[in-house]
Amino acid sequence: MDRLPGFRDFYPEPVPLGDHLAWSAEARGWLFEKWRDVARRYGFREYDGPPLEALELYTTKSGEEIVGQLYNFVDKGERAVALRPEMTPTLARMVAAHQRAYKKPIKWFAIPQLFRYERQQKGRLREHFQFNADILGTAEPAADAELIALLIDALRAVGLTAADFVVRISSRQAWQRFFEAHGGVPEQAYAFYQAVDKMGRDAPEVTRQKLAAVGMSADTVKAFIEESRPTPELQAVLDDLAARGLSAYVAVDYHIIRGLAYYTGIVFEAFDRQGQFRALAGGGRYDNLVRLLSEGQADLPALGFGMGDVVLLELLKARGQLPTTQPALGVFCLIEDEGLRADSLRLIQDLREAGLSVDYPLTPTKPDKQLKRALELGATRAVALVRGPTGAPAVRIKNVQSREQTIVPLADAVGALVGRASGPD
Amino acid sequence: MDRLPGFRDFYPEPVPLGDHLAWSAEARGWLFEKWRDVARRYGFREYDGPPLEALELYTTKSGEEIVGQLYNFVDKGERAVALRPEMTPTLARMVAAHQRAYKKPIKWFAIPQLFRYERQQKGRLREHFQFNADILGTAEPAADAELIALLIDALRAVGLTAADFVVRISSRQAWQRFFEAHGGVPEQAYAFYQAVDKMGRDAPEVTRQKLAAVGMSADTVKAFIEESRPTPELQAVLDDLAARGLSAYVAVDYHIIRGLAYYTGIVFEAFDRQGQFRALAGGGRYDNLVRLLSEGQADLPALGFGMGDVVLLELLKARGQLPTTQPALGVFCLIEDEGLRADSLRLIQDLREAGLSVDYPLTPTKPDKQLKRALELGATRAVALVRGPTGAPAVRIKNVQSREQTIVPLADAVGALVGRASGPD
Repeated sequence: MDRLPGFRDFYPEPVPLGDHLAWSAEARGWLFEKWRDVARRYGFREYDGPPLEALELYTTKSGEEIVGQLYNFVDKGERAVALRPEMTPTLARMVAAHQRAYKKPIKWFAIPQLFRYERQQKGRLREHFQFNADILGTAEPAADAELIALLIDALRAVGLTAADFVVRISSRQAWQRFFEAHGGVPEQAYAFYQAVDKMGRDAPEVTRQKLAAVGMSADTVKAFIEESRPTPELQAVLDDLAARGLSAYVAVDYHIIRGLAYYTGIVFEAFDRQGQFRALAGGGRYDNLVRLLSEGQADLPALGFGMGDVVLLELLKARGQLPTTQPALGVFCLIEDEGLRADSLRLIQDLREAGLSVDYPLTPTKPDKQLKRALELGATRAVALVRGPTGAPAVRIKNVQSREQTIVPLADAVGALVGRASGPD
Repeated sequence: MDRLPGFRDFYPEPVPLGDHLAWSAEARGWLFEKWRDVARRYGFREYDGPPLEALELYTTKSGEEIVGQLYNFVDKGERAVALRPEMTPTLARMVAAHQRAYKKPIKWFAIPQLFRYERQQKGRLREHFQFNADILGTAEPAADAELIALLIDALRAVGLTAADFVVRISSRQAWQRFFEAHGGVPEQAYAFYQAVDKMGRDAPEVTRQKLAAVGMSADTVKAFIEESRPTPELQAVLDDLAARGLSAYVAVDYHIIRGLAYYTGIVFEAFDRQGQFRALAGGGRYDNLVRLLSEGQADLPALGFGMGDVVLLELLKARGQLPTTQPALGVFCLIEDEGLRADSLRLIQDLREAGLSVDYPLTPTKPDKQLKRALELGATRAVALVRGPTGAPAVRIKNVQSREQTIVPLADAVGALVGRASGPD
């Protein structure tokens, strides 16, 4: 029996997963801890919601056309539901339900698994994990800068530098003003944003036609992008990031507009500098969305970003910066004399209670096989209970790497091993 | 728009969730870290699989009757699928696919979210999280003991003691031998196990009838339970646990039989000593299941347990041992002079890069409101950039609790705050 197409298994070590990139459970845990740590440093607090929500939570925001991309179904209670394709609707629902309990600004993050189902896209993943961070309750550009700084530091936290990535920031407002100044009508604004969003991928002629259809000239649009003059809001964000010493990680780039309808202010996407991959992360300000999603229950200016695990994984692999997930055991306890198994179990228990990771042979095993197992498990130390010269139990401690060994009285063994188990000696 | 019935939201702090117990995202993270840490100490490695699997992965093992309890549906590709109700089938599938890559015994754990859908059970949760640990590749009771020791230490890791819980261990084999010795026929064995499993909940007369239907006498069954004589395998497990010093946490109890059909050897359940709650955890040996689930691709003796988050939460709450999730910020940076905002942002960046969690007012705010915010966020220190006596920038550091304060040169601020931010002074 196989796993479903588009889903990933996470083994302790990465194994080939057919079409998909292998991310070991341990490397995934490493990434999640990096995300959690940077969020903590920025004062963001974790939340989570159900992986399944009412379908209308998504159609309210994105219209019925979104359903074609959702992993949706009708449950046994005849409810139209969907596996969550994104976190923002859940966030808006949760904040609206308990908004008085939280002082503003609210700085929250989550690491949800998200799902989509596009029938035609064979071989594409149907799930990924995403680091989501949002600030609710502040309309000031200072919040945009704080969020972008978090995004930058989240990428720095996994070892990427200004040579590896850049956050391209832009302004939906600037585009809206451009559109209006050139005679655009509100009903066509979304089609216009879509045309600009796809400029890099569409053929020039296609872009030209799409823009003409909404009354815009491709040359004027290009000139606007090339001029890339920051709006006052963008300048405020740039100045704020410069004060933090983060200028090298950002650039104004009006190619960025974000396809979704609901952005209202500054928008941004992070890319690898070499342009090899899709966007590493993207987000922006969505000041009207909480009101829309909460059906008027809450009305908070807000902004957020999402950073997926898949493109990041590809980039880290390409740069050789993916952490190697070697098994790393603190201590392997050899049981060379079955008559000492019971005493060895007590020692193992004591070492584990002292915080060390310890493994041992569950069944009687030849000494050379035991040592081989210790090496396979990446043990730093191999210990064995032995009879000391006086017959009193003692512990032989061997450094697996240096092969150096010492014998200590049983009573001193835990002390000798704790705090030394991961050191070179 | 509400969340779906039977699902939980996880807020940074616990909030009332209607019928359901509130577990904050931070407390949940605390629990998961305890589970991960104890698994690491025991040399178990993490894995994970998709939350959605082919329906037949579950019907193969448990028959069609399981479908009534599953969160199953037909996806857009006409596949019968289910949100995972348990982790063992996924584990068997994964191990079978790459069994040669892993030396035996395999010691793996996972913390999946699991799902069920029972139409009639209003108000019950439809999801929970479960700590799953399994050992594959060893038929020896030493493995059973190692797994039960892990279960015990997982409960001890969250602050529970031998006064709070006990692991009741039993033997499916012993029950099988009893059944055969008293003339039971194999086809009725499962009905017999079910009758014994429900003895505590069924009325004595119901039990008597159920047992009579499979040719067993209730009195003989009761006498067998009361005698509770350990089988050699059970005795080996008890001796092993005794050697570790864990005897106080276990008791042989033949009331335990585990309802599921696939157990083959030692079975166990953990309960609170006061008998207030349902089982905290349960598991046992299932030596034939990997072969069955992998359609013969792999054949490994195996055993495992699952420990859910919901009953554990109830018990920890009842015992007052649930960690309080107070916001705990390292440093709140006051910005009393907006002319110093840029320099403050640099200081904030430096403090965050040094690992401290730092927050600050995003917008100009009155000093007393800033201090109030620092208190709300649980900040240990409040710092502010100030002009020193010579006009050079300096940092005022205030201990929020003791209200003691000092002024240090800007260049010394990070050093002064790192490593002291969480201390009482």
